Amino acid sequence: MLGIRKLSPSQVDQAVDQLTGWKIEDGRLKRSFKFDDFTEAFGFMTAVALAAEKADHHPDWSNSYNRVQIALYTHSDKAITQKDLDLAKRINQILGDE
Amino acid sequence: MLGIRKLSPSQVDQAVDQLTGWKIEDGRLKRSFKFDDFTEAFGFMTAVALAAEKADHHPDWSNSYNRVQIALYTHSDKAITQKDLDLAKRINQILGDE
Repeated sequence: MLGIRKLSPSQVDQAVDQLTGWKIEDGRLKRSFKFDDFTEAFGFMTAVALAAEKADHHPDWSNSYNRVQIALYTHSDKAITQKDLDLAKRINQILGDE
Repeated sequence: MLGIRKLSPSQVDQAVDQLTGWKIEDGRLKRSFKFDDFTEAFGFMTAVALAAEKADHHPDWSNSYNRVQIALYTHSDKAITQKDLDLAKRINQILGDE
């Protein structure tokens, strides 16, 4: 069963191509977001936080006023995994991006 | 009235000395926090977000699971101002640190 959840780099690339706005940078799955103001940005972060807690998979992220940057990575696997792809997809759903 | 709200570097230093856990680094007023888990960290962030919105002064901050890093700075003044000191104090109150 070795590698049953391990994705090859090309599998990750293909999956990321399907995810609006996301790119791989420094080995992390990243997306930047810009909102109208802090309230809207933090409201988004709160929705993502609930989704992340539910999935038991959490983003590395930063916020400055109306901007949010998210980097997804599975620290335990030292790789981008299906968990990251799933959370990215969920975040896009929160935004209504897909 | 020039400089009525402008603090001298020594005034800022003196004020920071009174703020548990905060230090000046790269011209920003910074503090790092470690919680038991993500829920506790994000709960803290939510309380800070409400305080920041109320003060109309917002942190630059990042979160990774149970860790939160906050950098306070008044971008419009290109300096650490009383607004930053006040928000740092409020954050410490949220934590029960003073």
